[in-house]
Amino acid sequence: MTSPRPLRMALFGSGRIGQVHARNLAAHPDIELVLIADPFIDAARKLAEQTGARAVQDPDEVFAEPGLDAVIIGSPTSTHVDLITRAAAHGLAVLCEKPIDLDLATVMECRDKLKDTTVPIMLGFNRRFDPSFASINARVEAGEIGSLEQVTIISRDPAPAPRDYIETSGGIFRDMTIHDLDMARFFVEDIVEVTAVGSNQFSSDIEELGDYDSVVVTLRGSRGELITITNSRHCAYGYDQRLEAFGSEGMLEAKNITPTTVRKYGASGTAEGEAYMPFFLERYAQAYKAELDAFAMAIRSGTPCSPSFEDGVAALVLADAALESARTGKTVKLKPIA
Amino acid sequence: MTSPRPLRMALFGSGRIGQVHARNLAAHPDIELVLIADPFIDAARKLAEQTGARAVQDPDEVFAEPGLDAVIIGSPTSTHVDLITRAAAHGLAVLCEKPIDLDLATVMECRDKLKDTTVPIMLGFNRRFDPSFASINARVEAGEIGSLEQVTIISRDPAPAPRDYIETSGGIFRDMTIHDLDMARFFVEDIVEVTAVGSNQFSSDIEELGDYDSVVVTLRGSRGELITITNSRHCAYGYDQRLEAFGSEGMLEAKNITPTTVRKYGASGTAEGEAYMPFFLERYAQAYKAELDAFAMAIRSGTPCSPSFEDGVAALVLADAALESARTGKTVKLKPIA
Amino acid sequence: MTSPRPLRMALFGSGRIGQVHARNLAAHPDIELVLIADPFIDAARKLAEQTGARAVQDPDEVFAEPGLDAVIIGSPTSTHVDLITRAAAHGLAVLCEKPIDLDLATVMECRDKLKDTTVPIMLGFNRRFDPSFASINARVEAGEIGSLEQVTIISRDPAPAPRDYIETSGGIFRDMTIHDLDMARFFVEDIVEVTAVGSNQFSSDIEELGDYDSVVVTLRGSRGELITITNSRHCAYGYDQRLEAFGSEGMLEAKNITPTTVRKYGASGTAEGEAYMPFFLERYAQAYKAELDAFAMAIRSGTPCSPSFEDGVAALVLADAALESARTGKTVKLKPIA
Amino acid sequence: MTSPRPLRMALFGSGRIGQVHARNLAAHPDIELVLIADPFIDAARKLAEQTGARAVQDPDEVFAEPGLDAVIIGSPTSTHVDLITRAAAHGLAVLCEKPIDLDLATVMECRDKLKDTTVPIMLGFNRRFDPSFASINARVEAGEIGSLEQVTIISRDPAPAPRDYIETSGGIFRDMTIHDLDMARFFVEDIVEVTAVGSNQFSSDIEELGDYDSVVVTLRGSRGELITITNSRHCAYGYDQRLEAFGSEGMLEAKNITPTTVRKYGASGTAEGEAYMPFFLERYAQAYKAELDAFAMAIRSGTPCSPSFEDGVAALVLADAALESARTGKTVKLKPIA
Repeated sequence: MTSPRPLRMALFGSGRIGQVHARNLAAHPDIELVLIADPFIDAARKLAEQTGARAVQDPDEVFAEPGLDAVIIGSPTSTHVDLITRAAAHGLAVLCEKPIDLDLATVMECRDKLKDTTVPIMLGFNRRFDPSFASINARVEAGEIGSLEQVTIISRDPAPAPRDYIETSGGIFRDMTIHDLDMARFFVEDIVEVTAVGSNQFSSDIEELGDYDSVVVTLRGSRGELITITNSRHCAYGYDQRLEAFGSEGMLEAKNITPTTVRKYGASGTAEGEAYMPFFLERYAQAYKAELDAFAMAIRSGTPCSPSFEDGVAALVLADAALESARTGKTVKLKPIA
Repeated sequence: MTSPRPLRMALFGSGRIGQVHARNLAAHPDIELVLIADPFIDAARKLAEQTGARAVQDPDEVFAEPGLDAVIIGSPTSTHVDLITRAAAHGLAVLCEKPIDLDLATVMECRDKLKDTTVPIMLGFNRRFDPSFASINARVEAGEIGSLEQVTIISRDPAPAPRDYIETSGGIFRDMTIHDLDMARFFVEDIVEVTAVGSNQFSSDIEELGDYDSVVVTLRGSRGELITITNSRHCAYGYDQRLEAFGSEGMLEAKNITPTTVRKYGASGTAEGEAYMPFFLERYAQAYKAELDAFAMAIRSGTPCSPSFEDGVAALVLADAALESARTGKTVKLKPIA
Repeated sequence: MTSPRPLRMALFGSGRIGQVHARNLAAHPDIELVLIADPFIDAARKLAEQTGARAVQDPDEVFAEPGLDAVIIGSPTSTHVDLITRAAAHGLAVLCEKPIDLDLATVMECRDKLKDTTVPIMLGFNRRFDPSFASINARVEAGEIGSLEQVTIISRDPAPAPRDYIETSGGIFRDMTIHDLDMARFFVEDIVEVTAVGSNQFSSDIEELGDYDSVVVTLRGSRGELITITNSRHCAYGYDQRLEAFGSEGMLEAKNITPTTVRKYGASGTAEGEAYMPFFLERYAQAYKAELDAFAMAIRSGTPCSPSFEDGVAALVLADAALESARTGKTVKLKPIA
Repeated sequence: MTSPRPLRMALFGSGRIGQVHARNLAAHPDIELVLIADPFIDAARKLAEQTGARAVQDPDEVFAEPGLDAVIIGSPTSTHVDLITRAAAHGLAVLCEKPIDLDLATVMECRDKLKDTTVPIMLGFNRRFDPSFASINARVEAGEIGSLEQVTIISRDPAPAPRDYIETSGGIFRDMTIHDLDMARFFVEDIVEVTAVGSNQFSSDIEELGDYDSVVVTLRGSRGELITITNSRHCAYGYDQRLEAFGSEGMLEAKNITPTTVRKYGASGTAEGEAYMPFFLERYAQAYKAELDAFAMAIRSGTPCSPSFEDGVAALVLADAALESARTGKTVKLKPIA
């Protein structure tokens, strides 16, 4: 059923997210992980050893490698545009972690360079592949709750990233909310208005950097759908990732995941579940695998990637609009991207 | 719609259960609570004052009262047979707390005396009126889960009654399990076999009295249904009262009740509910009201009472059989009651 | 413990909400319902008969009645200001259904007239007395989730009111959202900013009347708290009334209520609960009783009423601000009410 | 950290359970699947191809293979005793699917032959490795619910196996209940009494074969613990696998698993989950992996296997006792196995 030889891939980046991809690539029946590239060659070597790949330091070595089919870009954001562009030029399919870049102008420039490219380019909005969110999306598409009217997304990180990270993150909207903005577009592709408010509730570090630690974003879709996103940079009970899709005929809800189904009953309380999955690596473990399946499938079948490069652009446009709205206190109306 | 004057009733007993009945009687739109009888006249007086009734010391005063329609018997078990017999002889409808008596021979004698009586006699198996159990029963009757095959009843008291109470209680099967035996018969009226095991797990008091603090009873219905009852005389998380009805096409489950729907999420656990209702007065508050409605309705309509005197007999027969089975290690086959 | 004679009260209005109050008043141990006033004298008479009160047609008859302690105002909104003012002038305590009036200027005028009044005036924001919401509020106050940061309120009516009602309702913010705005203030009293968006999703009637059928409101508290309200005028699965309070140390959540705890398991799905309580009369039945308790307690103890007349003013100010924000696409900053 | 070369293993059987093991063996980082043996050589070949192993027809080829460390026995029950004995004689570690044999005398003979063996022998009671059951077991061991008093095990297959299978299955107690009997022993190792009842509720095939389709078993532990097992050969809502451990200080419960956390709310019902995992391959997918980890760990560390051969013996003794009890209507007291 599968092609005579597996898809040969290279991975950029051997950090936290690179490690997730490396293990999934190594375990995938239709993929051979050939190279892992990272300027921190020691990290690349260690990961390569565990996954049967070769480690290289210089991206050039990846592009010089014969017989590659695709690259996975899990290196720092600042390298994304360059690596996407070069990979596309070499005819390699691309799966790139979000965001494309923090600067919309840079992204649009990259988009321009890619306008004639035919290789599959997929954006790493992994949450679209979460079994619960994907199931709701499919059931909404199938008309199970009638016409979609409201979407409620609650998304809270367990604890803020270190100050250093926050400083270069592009701010909460471009760094954290962007995932939820893409999730909003997964359900309501055509967003026409963005209204956002931000607040500083607990982190003086974040406040000093001119960023928010808590935000609420309301989006309006072209058919009047209202989507609400609630974010916080901390959450005492773990990684909070929930979604409700409300339609004219019902509601579908995805809750958080506990490691087991065990519930405790005692003198002080009843039916207490375990703490939630700590963070995205655990919570979205299945999603990262399904994402890779979808990428391999897109390469094999030649069908368009989803989420696409354009989805990456659209999410950044929404993040920028949310920041503008939070700063000005005005709803921002979006124009169609030419 | 209702009769020109409310039903006039007297209550025997002003203890814990008498107080529940007194308040429900006083609040019932179709009932006038006329008398409260208790040898402890002070308790009767206090309760009478709160409920607009008159207190009397001697049961004779109740039977001498003109114009009564019914009596509620909430006095000690040892008084039940006498009061039922006299009330019936006076043409008064009866709602009597369970059990009729702890001794089956005495109960059968009473039954004999009542054989020509036409007044409604209802047994206070209040759990049949619990909204959740009643709803499952009705849905099973309506065929919602196909043919009923297994019933799982879990019933645990929050803490053992005092040693004094246990001593005269008739033992766990006749005192506590009897409620669950009636619940089993609510679903599967015709029980043909009883298998029981008892254990002493935590209470040396109960062990010294030759009683069990933990039992499991398995009943077989005439169509092969299997009903399992699990009892404990203590429960750290409150009054545990659950039921599952399993049929050929599905399952219906009734869970415990928390005072509110509030759930807590924190670092140590998630979705923690409140402690359960402490004991039967709280848990079955609605059931006691619905029981009174049913009693009033039976009197008004002349339809047979349910649960009936016969249901009280049947539950005691099952309790005796369970005790025999636990002691002998043998399944007890039941003969039809003549 | 209670005063020698019950509090003597009169009720204005014998419609849907008047009937709820009448029955609760009649059943309350410390209240005597003396009069029910309604220009539709037949309705008043019917209700009076059921509750042991006298029916009167003209409000003047209420104010002429000697020995009254308090009035409950459940008549149409347009009568509220007049009745509150007259009752206060007669030294009668007042429990008035929300809103005080749809017009803020009229409300402020009334407020001015009442500035020297000492009688207790309570606003009928019944949801504050819902056992689940009240419990969360108390637990937040007790510091159980640390410092409060975000509140998520989801509130959907089962179906839109008739066009006639909508037409004179003052619009969704003043008619429906106002309950949620008060709920927001129950948790975060001092609101400083209002941002709202409205949409027309399903009702052409509502659209033609220039009103919204779906809105999202984001409020900011003086300490940076963010509160989100999501409303819809319809909901396929019943009356949807939920709340989450998120703090630095955890989260407390109130869910919807099912009539029983029964859950069904079948071939097509598992753990299915019953449909929710249909609407506010059922869902908030306990809240209406607790509200009356609080009102009686406030009169007896002389402590300030909560929610107060000022809470009624504040909610209307927020509703007006939300409408302005939804229409202008701008966040509205609130000034302290003089 | 791991040994220089992976553990080299052979697998007997390429049927349903053999396929599960083959895939887990192939994916295990510390195991090399060398051989798959099956008289149905085509099935063995197909599976070998997918997993990079060699297929052989004759067990002798396995025992002739140099350098093997262990065998996994997933072939028919009738082959177990022979294969265990030969593997042990060849110094190979063994992981054998349950049961060892349907005949206790045969098992005891095998046990006798193994009495001097030192190789690790592990029984495939996979449910001990289910994350939820394992977690409850560990928390009970840690004293989280005080002293263990009652265990409630509910275990229902989605649908009866074909008549052919049932005919040679050894009956429900030896074929199906045996898993629950081992689960009971996972919590309460020392069982002293067995009481069982069986019923024929829906399958005439099973009845004709002299077997039961529905059973309830009550076990007593040496410290008075009571364990209840409820089984049915069918279940309309899928594979029903639940457990409650009740102790002096609380209760721990494991529920069934839905594929995602999605819940649906509609006009006819609320919070409806998806159908449960269809059967053991899906429900216990994680358990089979964890079982293999434990087996590899036992080989590496030389620590005793758990569940052991003795656990396999004990479960069969309980199954035989249950059958005897169901047939005789008497509680069966167990003697310590010499």
